[in-house]
Amino acid sequence: MSFTASYTIHLSETDAAGVVYFANVPHLCHVAYEDSLLAVGIDLKALVSARGLALPITHCAVDFFQPLFCGDRILIVLTPHTLDSSSFEVTYQIYHDPAGDRRVAQVLTRHVAIDPIQRQRLTLPPDLIHWLTQWQTSDS
Amino acid sequence: MSFTASYTIHLSETDAAGVVYFANVPHLCHVAYEDSLLAVGIDLKALVSARGLALPITHCAVDFFQPLFCGDRILIVLTPHTLDSSSFEVTYQIYHDPAGDRRVAQVLTRHVAIDPIQRQRLTLPPDLIHWLTQWQTSDS
Amino acid sequence: MSFTASYTIHLSETDAAGVVYFANVPHLCHVAYEDSLLAVGIDLKALVSARGLALPITHCAVDFFQPLFCGDRILIVLTPHTLDSSSFEVTYQIYHDPAGDRRVAQVLTRHVAIDPIQRQRLTLPPDLIHWLTQWQTSDS
Amino acid sequence: MSFTASYTIHLSETDAAGVVYFANVPHLCHVAYEDSLLAVGIDLKALVSARGLALPITHCAVDFFQPLFCGDRILIVLTPHTLDSSSFEVTYQIYHDPAGDRRVAQVLTRHVAIDPIQRQRLTLPPDLIHWLTQWQTSDS
Repeated sequence: MSFTASYTIHLSETDAAGVVYFANVPHLCHVAYEDSLLAVGIDLKALVSARGLALPITHCAVDFFQPLFCGDRILIVLTPHTLDSSSFEVTYQIYHDPAGDRRVAQVLTRHVAIDPIQRQRLTLPPDLIHWLTQWQTSDS
Repeated sequence: MSFTASYTIHLSETDAAGVVYFANVPHLCHVAYEDSLLAVGIDLKALVSARGLALPITHCAVDFFQPLFCGDRILIVLTPHTLDSSSFEVTYQIYHDPAGDRRVAQVLTRHVAIDPIQRQRLTLPPDLIHWLTQWQTSDS
Repeated sequence: MSFTASYTIHLSETDAAGVVYFANVPHLCHVAYEDSLLAVGIDLKALVSARGLALPITHCAVDFFQPLFCGDRILIVLTPHTLDSSSFEVTYQIYHDPAGDRRVAQVLTRHVAIDPIQRQRLTLPPDLIHWLTQWQTSDS
Repeated sequence: MSFTASYTIHLSETDAAGVVYFANVPHLCHVAYEDSLLAVGIDLKALVSARGLALPITHCAVDFFQPLFCGDRILIVLTPHTLDSSSFEVTYQIYHDPAGDRRVAQVLTRHVAIDPIQRQRLTLPPDLIHWLTQWQTSDS
């Protein structure tokens, strides 16, 4: 089952062109990613400040279909996929909330577990595997 | 009755010192301000893009008491006060959620209604007066 | 000849993992894009607030090769490419400054000229075509 | 002699009201603060990630006089003042560049040196005292 969350677009996410600044679309997906980690009980502060493990994003792709405005409500549907023992990717579908007939955007992020000092790959830790199992879906 | 909302601190609000970047504290208060406007039915997109009215902030003050970390949950208690026919101020008290015994920060913003072209003061519109009445409190 | 500019990484661009937040990498490329427009004399304020023309990004892709830290200096080498009469893409190569032997990241953004009300494609205006001609390169 | 630097307003600093988002004004002052530290040779990455010393902002006040638009150039004139052996404040005057006759904004930040674990005050380190001496002015 994918993780779904609803967010409101706030003023700071928009720019003088009147719509959400492009880089805030993948940013909002990262907010959903963090919320999906919190939802399975992961201690985000501990994960972020862990000295032996980092989960950098190695690739990100965004397709923008419709503009977003201040006050809009959006749904983000997040689905992670295991790639190998040290990496995974996450797809995000963004819709208006309540959902209309067209997506707002789709985003992909690819993450790899590394030792932040040596910059070498590590096996994904058990809580991340639990998170992957929780939100990984076979029905979409 | 003041407006109260709960927020989670996300990674993008922190910096490499490990805590929330200082300017994101008044930013989070503005998020609460926008949410308090939405809560009384104000159309935020229309308000922001109104060509005849702007509500710029003329003054902001922040006292920082404790650091905030990624994953922390905070409560923001927002209370507006009418200053005169064209201006108001808003005070924000930020607490850990669930509330501990010390505040995280307090913020003040002062706003004035103007014509954005002429930069001259305007009388506050009825929906803002309704908002002020809704969240203005005599009991704190 | 590509457009090249140098930037310093500031604290707000980093996060509590100690490095630049991923979405700030395409953001910094957009800063370079704006600076390349200013460099050929384009009035950025007029372009952004033009009511008859918008240049939304329709696609963005980022490959991250190395982390960036607060205080790092980077070079962004920007090269636009015309796609058709209404669209173009921009590639950005990010290096440490002074340049080391590995890239920090590469970014692609795709832009389309539209009427922001009707959401229909428009022909690129002359100043954008001048900008494309200026920084479009055949030698890389 | 105060530290003076010039910055261009970029799209991401603006919001859908067409002007710079209020919290980006103190943010831009912090950029100038970091640049003033770099200008005296301070290693910003080392300072930010130092495990024995933090320099949190305890108070910030901003007066906004004029709006800023995308593409505007601003001058920030930064002047630090020692408060006591562990704290200092910094005032920032923001002007249009080239300077017009009215300030855009003025900002004050107050900083204290602490041990980030114990949260107890520390004496300012020598490189900060050098920075204070360098930009502290008696002539304004």
